[in-house]
Amino acid sequence: MLRTHNCGQLTTANIGETITLNGWVQTRRDLGGVLFIDLRDRTGIVQVVFNPAYSGDALQVADRVRSEYVLAVKGEVVLRDDETINKNLPTGEIEVRITEIEVLNAAKTPPFFIEDGIEVDESVRLKYRYLDLRRPEMQKTLMLRSKAAKVFRDFLDGEGFIDVETPILTKSSPEGARDYLVPSRVHAGEFFALPQSPQIFKQLLMVSGLERYYQIARCFRDEDLRSDRQPEFTQVDIETSFLTQDNLLDMMEQLMVKLFKETVNVDIPTPFQRITHADAMDKYGSDKPDLRFGLELVNVSDIVAASGVKVFASVIEKGGEVKCLNAKGCGTWTRKEIDSLEPYAARYGAKGLAWIQVKEGELKGPIVKFFNEQELEQIKTAVGAEDGDLLLFSADTKKVVADVLGALRLKIGRDLGLIDDKAFKFVWVVDFPLLGYDEDAKRYVAEHHPFTRPREEDVHLFDTDPGQIRAQAYDIVLNGYEVGGGSMRIYKRDVQEKMFAALGLPEEESRDKFGYLMDAFEYGTPPHGGIAFGFDRLVMLLAGRTNLRETIAFPKTANATDLLMDAPSQVDVSQLQQLHIKLAKKPGDDKKQENN
Amino acid sequence: MLRTHNCGQLTTANIGETITLNGWVQTRRDLGGVLFIDLRDRTGIVQVVFNPAYSGDALQVADRVRSEYVLAVKGEVVLRDDETINKNLPTGEIEVRITEIEVLNAAKTPPFFIEDGIEVDESVRLKYRYLDLRRPEMQKTLMLRSKAAKVFRDFLDGEGFIDVETPILTKSSPEGARDYLVPSRVHAGEFFALPQSPQIFKQLLMVSGLERYYQIARCFRDEDLRSDRQPEFTQVDIETSFLTQDNLLDMMEQLMVKLFKETVNVDIPTPFQRITHADAMDKYGSDKPDLRFGLELVNVSDIVAASGVKVFASVIEKGGEVKCLNAKGCGTWTRKEIDSLEPYAARYGAKGLAWIQVKEGELKGPIVKFFNEQELEQIKTAVGAEDGDLLLFSADTKKVVADVLGALRLKIGRDLGLIDDKAFKFVWVVDFPLLGYDEDAKRYVAEHHPFTRPREEDVHLFDTDPGQIRAQAYDIVLNGYEVGGGSMRIYKRDVQEKMFAALGLPEEESRDKFGYLMDAFEYGTPPHGGIAFGFDRLVMLLAGRTNLRETIAFPKTANATDLLMDAPSQVDVSQLQQLHIKLAKKPGDDKKQENN
Repeated sequence: MLRTHNCGQLTTANIGETITLNGWVQTRRDLGGVLFIDLRDRTGIVQVVFNPAYSGDALQVADRVRSEYVLAVKGEVVLRDDETINKNLPTGEIEVRITEIEVLNAAKTPPFFIEDGIEVDESVRLKYRYLDLRRPEMQKTLMLRSKAAKVFRDFLDGEGFIDVETPILTKSSPEGARDYLVPSRVHAGEFFALPQSPQIFKQLLMVSGLERYYQIARCFRDEDLRSDRQPEFTQVDIETSFLTQDNLLDMMEQLMVKLFKETVNVDIPTPFQRITHADAMDKYGSDKPDLRFGLELVNVSDIVAASGVKVFASVIEKGGEVKCLNAKGCGTWTRKEIDSLEPYAARYGAKGLAWIQVKEGELKGPIVKFFNEQELEQIKTAVGAEDGDLLLFSADTKKVVADVLGALRLKIGRDLGLIDDKAFKFVWVVDFPLLGYDEDAKRYVAEHHPFTRPREEDVHLFDTDPGQIRAQAYDIVLNGYEVGGGSMRIYKRDVQEKMFAALGLPEEESRDKFGYLMDAFEYGTPPHGGIAFGFDRLVMLLAGRTNLRETIAFPKTANATDLLMDAPSQVDVSQLQQLHIKLAKKPGDDKKQENN
Repeated sequence: MLRTHNCGQLTTANIGETITLNGWVQTRRDLGGVLFIDLRDRTGIVQVVFNPAYSGDALQVADRVRSEYVLAVKGEVVLRDDETINKNLPTGEIEVRITEIEVLNAAKTPPFFIEDGIEVDESVRLKYRYLDLRRPEMQKTLMLRSKAAKVFRDFLDGEGFIDVETPILTKSSPEGARDYLVPSRVHAGEFFALPQSPQIFKQLLMVSGLERYYQIARCFRDEDLRSDRQPEFTQVDIETSFLTQDNLLDMMEQLMVKLFKETVNVDIPTPFQRITHADAMDKYGSDKPDLRFGLELVNVSDIVAASGVKVFASVIEKGGEVKCLNAKGCGTWTRKEIDSLEPYAARYGAKGLAWIQVKEGELKGPIVKFFNEQELEQIKTAVGAEDGDLLLFSADTKKVVADVLGALRLKIGRDLGLIDDKAFKFVWVVDFPLLGYDEDAKRYVAEHHPFTRPREEDVHLFDTDPGQIRAQAYDIVLNGYEVGGGSMRIYKRDVQEKMFAALGLPEEESRDKFGYLMDAFEYGTPPHGGIAFGFDRLVMLLAGRTNLRETIAFPKTANATDLLMDAPSQVDVSQLQQLHIKLAKKPGDDKKQENN
């Protein structure tokens, strides 16, 4: 009894047809000797009916089935009576009068209902993931993910990108996050590492003259997890030769347009806004600004430097700054409401939060008295203050001001309902700094990685002010989430040497760390660069989810555990012996020590 | 100077156009002050010319370039003089008169020529893989591989299969090959394992009601390597619900037709031949028969049992058999040539090799005298012996006879040139035995895996003769290579219990080993089954290669080493400490012991 049709796709057009369905029992109702079963497959649900008038023996068989039984049924599609039409169900106008049934399999009662919107502890859902994934919203997300991968592939294939698989068993990298290691059986005492990204391989493929490469690649980082991190994650990894940054960004915009059109039928306008890293930090206090709403930050340092607010003056004197966020329309908040922002701001490092209300053309609040009339006017003009506004001030180092006002901007944007949940607002953040100064190590470190190309016109700054060099590096930000990022790479030896020198890496050490890549670069490396999209996160945003685990078929918990498979787990000592390793402590040793 | 055209795609249609090319210097020739450079990109090669008459300063710049320099050049496409037209080059009718040049990068002299068919030690090619991959034949193979993946995906997508990524960090499996293990930092003393295949996950996805799943999946086996094995390999993993074996096999044939048409433009006829495992072993001595040629084996046990050849009689008495391979046209071989087969046969377990020549209607050879006239006639008829044939006999256990004559059949087929190298001959081998008897363990073991479904009509044999049960398991064989295989899976609890009982697994032990899967199976498991294609091997055959490493961008050696990255490698002790493991011996301890 193989299906002829799918449950969710039956319509009035099928009326009169004798069809066969395969699926799962969603619900079963007995109304006066007539059995109604909602039968579910991955396309949806349809009502099938067992009636003594036409079902014969099938009725007795159906009487024994319960939720989640697997059935094959055969019968005729008929129009429902007017009063039983279900407008909430796509197939609600018809039902199927069953004449034959086969119970393909029985089912125990599942630990939770197979339906959307259930309130079940996530650990239970993860343990019974095979049932959780039976729920329509999970199936839809997996199908969306599959579709999204297809769109990426089709687009990149059309642009001449070649899908190349790079190794999972590779070498431990000297920088970056912690590696997952894999002991070697053949080479005692040696280890493979799982790749944090295919970065080196994709650059080597450019050295190979492949010109355009992509891969939907699994990557691994053994970091402490958060809700938006997984020990293994997926990125769409892209690299090209002979293109400029602008060429690549334009192409990637077209890719995003296609992705959103073909998966969620949303038209994304191009070109995407491009904002420098400096501007993003200045206006939004973030290198991944959510541009679905305004509320830009305004630097008022010059205006307030000479005011009587001592903390403002002293911060500016020390090289810090004072910025203002105009919380439009919050001027009517009570003192209590305003004060409630303080602990929130404190989480981001604020030592206090100054504010001014605009009421009936007047500025009001504890700090107003420290300003003269002219200063107050200048502030009003600078931040566009109008009646009913609330001006929030942060005075601190640039970093703290950005963190505090960036976070407040998001909170107020959300609280005021300024954010359109249906909107998808892309922005490129460009011109990231090439180097950051590590105060502990007293040296520059690569902001992106040591092969990131500086902007041509900034190369001379290696000799004078390396911290000011802008990189040909870019992030693509969607609704405040970084969904991708990349850079043009250094391909000229003299620039690479300047870069290593700026990083304080003696040639010997750079050879040790990046030897094979530097070797490769000497044999005719084309100009190249690329980008990687965080696939899990993009799917999350496409699906309107807020948790990465919802987008992954078999995710791990925040504790890096697979609750379904019970992994990781202990293994036989003989396995470890073959791998030439032993446990540092016997399992349970920790507990013993705790007991002592 | 971004390219406007690709080198290999220029034709006489471009004559008169001013174009820009980006690429690598293949060769550079100076003919009386005129410089000819063959410029290469991934599409091919074109000749660009620097002439004092039109190149200006570009000539001086070009004079300094060497092989593998990366150039951007601009100039006009012109028709070559008749006498300089190169018929061997697709672009050989035209050349480009260069007016501008930019040296994008210099190059050291590479360790081997960047051209096809080089005779360079493979270890050198692997160490400089980024140069090896610059060679056109390697680029073509990678492009073919990318294309093949695309065809698989397009076909499966069209049939409603959903691409789902399953975990790489998973649980060590109790059966099968050796696992690669990954120590957990968070869970001291515990380990993840890299998957040998997504088998369990794909079955769980069927329990999830996803109905059709596929994945081009990386798999890992820590086995001793051969030329056709890699520690990590790629399979196209497919699983469906509600289909019969025949439905699935038919669909997969269409997939193969599309794959061969769209990658190498070969029409594969359908339906593919289907041969039972028993027949394959009987006729070809192999469960992966090469059907590009005949030379079927013939069982002559009945005929020779009563003959005077003592070894024949005694082998048959002990339950063995005698089979004959008619090596057509080899009847003229000298005694020496025939004898040379013996050591070859011995490699496959033969203790000797009896033979008969057919000359002028007569059978000749040392063993002929032990047969009577009637037996000789029967042999001739059974094997279709004609003048000029050589009959080779193997008498031993069924297994040895199959191994010996199966191998001889292949050798003679090759030696006689019976094999059409351009042919692609598919065959399904079906009805594999469900169980094999492990003589050491004195129990049955699963031939495929313990979830393989028996043929419906054989289920009753669990009670009487489990060894005779045929499985709903199948391999797809191409030109003698197994390129895929799979099975329908058990989905009914009573059948699963019979299977575990046949394997001698007490319920407790089966729970221990397969608990989560058995749990899952109780919640409404649909009938399901699937297949996995060996993607590396399929690409190898499509590309006409004989070594899997040629089809993988960054392969490992037979010693499980990555010569390019120098992996595996030693890691910091601090890394091991974080992972709660230590080395069983310090590196170098082995050497010390050897010195004692």
